[in-house]
Amino acid sequence: MLNFELKCTDGNSRAGELSVDGRIAKTPLFMPVATRGVVRTLLSEDIEQLGIHALITNAYHLLMRPGVEVIEKMGGIHDFMNWDGIIFTDSGGFQMIRKGFEQDITDDRVKFKSEYDGSVFELTPRKNIELQMRLGADVAMCLDYCPPHPADKETLLASVEKTTRWAKECRTKDGAIFGISQGGVDPALRAKSCTEIADIDFQGNAIGGLSIGEPTDDMYRMLEIAHDIYPPNSPRYLMGLGSPVEMLESIGRGIDLFDSAYPTRNARHGTIFTQYGPIDIRKAKYRCDKSSLDDDCICPTCKRYSRAYINHLCRTKELSWMRMVTIHNLHFILSLIRNARVAINSGDFKDFKNDFAKKYG
Amino acid sequence: MLNFELKCTDGNSRAGELSVDGRIAKTPLFMPVATRGVVRTLLSEDIEQLGIHALITNAYHLLMRPGVEVIEKMGGIHDFMNWDGIIFTDSGGFQMIRKGFEQDITDDRVKFKSEYDGSVFELTPRKNIELQMRLGADVAMCLDYCPPHPADKETLLASVEKTTRWAKECRTKDGAIFGISQGGVDPALRAKSCTEIADIDFQGNAIGGLSIGEPTDDMYRMLEIAHDIYPPNSPRYLMGLGSPVEMLESIGRGIDLFDSAYPTRNARHGTIFTQYGPIDIRKAKYRCDKSSLDDDCICPTCKRYSRAYINHLCRTKELSWMRMVTIHNLHFILSLIRNARVAINSGDFKDFKNDFAKKYG
Repeated sequence: MLNFELKCTDGNSRAGELSVDGRIAKTPLFMPVATRGVVRTLLSEDIEQLGIHALITNAYHLLMRPGVEVIEKMGGIHDFMNWDGIIFTDSGGFQMIRKGFEQDITDDRVKFKSEYDGSVFELTPRKNIELQMRLGADVAMCLDYCPPHPADKETLLASVEKTTRWAKECRTKDGAIFGISQGGVDPALRAKSCTEIADIDFQGNAIGGLSIGEPTDDMYRMLEIAHDIYPPNSPRYLMGLGSPVEMLESIGRGIDLFDSAYPTRNARHGTIFTQYGPIDIRKAKYRCDKSSLDDDCICPTCKRYSRAYINHLCRTKELSWMRMVTIHNLHFILSLIRNARVAINSGDFKDFKNDFAKKYG
Repeated sequence: MLNFELKCTDGNSRAGELSVDGRIAKTPLFMPVATRGVVRTLLSEDIEQLGIHALITNAYHLLMRPGVEVIEKMGGIHDFMNWDGIIFTDSGGFQMIRKGFEQDITDDRVKFKSEYDGSVFELTPRKNIELQMRLGADVAMCLDYCPPHPADKETLLASVEKTTRWAKECRTKDGAIFGISQGGVDPALRAKSCTEIADIDFQGNAIGGLSIGEPTDDMYRMLEIAHDIYPPNSPRYLMGLGSPVEMLESIGRGIDLFDSAYPTRNARHGTIFTQYGPIDIRKAKYRCDKSSLDDDCICPTCKRYSRAYINHLCRTKELSWMRMVTIHNLHFILSLIRNARVAINSGDFKDFKNDFAKKYG
């Protein structure tokens, strides 16, 4: 059973609590990406220690490796990872209908090739949801059809229609399922998609097909459209966005949930979040820098290691540095979201957001 | 100041305590390899949690990256890593005089090319020791000349003579320094080298040039020669050996200290130590195996994760598995050495060794 309780609002920003079968997470909520059943470079105990209460894994990748049967035999994804927080599964639609792996898509099913061994899979939207349930997901995401950006109106309209049709097939009585709207950055089509998805009456509503290269202001406009259409008492989930300032702007437009590989992928490429904006820890200027990654940061990495040491490990390709910076970047985003929640509760969200953005640049 | 106290013997096996400037480690002692100032895939807090009290880093690699000046500026290798156990430095002789990077070696100095950028370095044995001291090592190792295996008598004799000559130059009044014998598996030359090194009167004596491809029985014979010659009240260090049964056999021949990349490198190649012998965790037969890596093991990995999960992470190339298995293999070796010590103290070492070897195979 999914429950969502709205505790407090401040303008359009919202603080709430999401619970699924006794597993609880406060919103706004950032979910790290555990594509293959692990947050890259980390272990389940790290996830616990960072205070992460929800994450999202990917049905497409788990279907390929190790396979649904293996995870079922192991007692589901929670037992497999030995981690007891809320686990969302992405349908993997984005992976299934990519160029190069797309085989054949009809109104009724997706046929696609495994990127691992080329074998061909065929899935209906309903079968996809069933797979997510068999994996043991707390929350399953509808299979949607995400067009590339930019796309012409005709393509966008077709993707909205397909997404709605599939969403209707995904809707079941059992299990917690989120619908997803498409429509690119076309206001009318986005509104049409949000309306149709909202009408199907899911436990939560997501916004898909954004943060894929469109202008930021267009994205914000779409969030405002979704805000006006999606039911206020259900959680709203902006998929695939994880940059600090954009997350705060999205919270200011009524978003409750986020997921993104942005903090972890950036970390592994040497881009470290600090309160004064991102730095590239690989640069030679950090070779003798005794300070921590970010002033005042209390993450395990900043409490123990200097920029100089991390720079050294990075330049000598020692894997340990990836773990250090992944922990730091996740801690940074999680703290930001926690502080945003505090600000919403005290009615200071706008000032908090502006102060952060001013410093972060 | 280095102190070594012999607490107990059982046959030729010895239990003691090594202390350097207040940092203490019990012997027999296994030192993980932290070549570039980090145990690969781990962090300093992992080293603490595993109960590791000593490790060895490599002067050659640290000289190349990040450079001695950087580590000096950072307050020495302990501050750089932020870890407060005993740190040995290897001279890096093995790296400097490798084929392909060797430039020119005389009786007085080594000239070699950096494997990182091709720049040329020139080091006398004394300069090498000074670099190790500047890095902040608790214990420095003499620059020695290790011939390949097999080598003819002439080559071995020349290497013994060079090693002795260099060792005399390395000997200083300050700092804790270990001498190293060479001589391959030639009994007379090994005895000559051990005698000459012992005569220089170092704080400890190492056995070099073994575990590089020679028959195991020949290696054991060399340990017996060293045992008869090296002073009993100083620690004896067999360099580069880390396989479980051979370590126990070496302890039975009077060895106190070990270092090796064997447990960590094997881990990263999927070879996992168990009480019933090594297993290859990458194999398909572990895909649905709910058991831990090794029955009864209490390491953090075995307490939390199944073989199936680790197999999955390994097959999908998720880096987290390398950390999991590195922790397990180090825990295995550290427990083995701790149990060997207990057995020595209770006079049961021989039975302990035989029981272990019988099960391990």
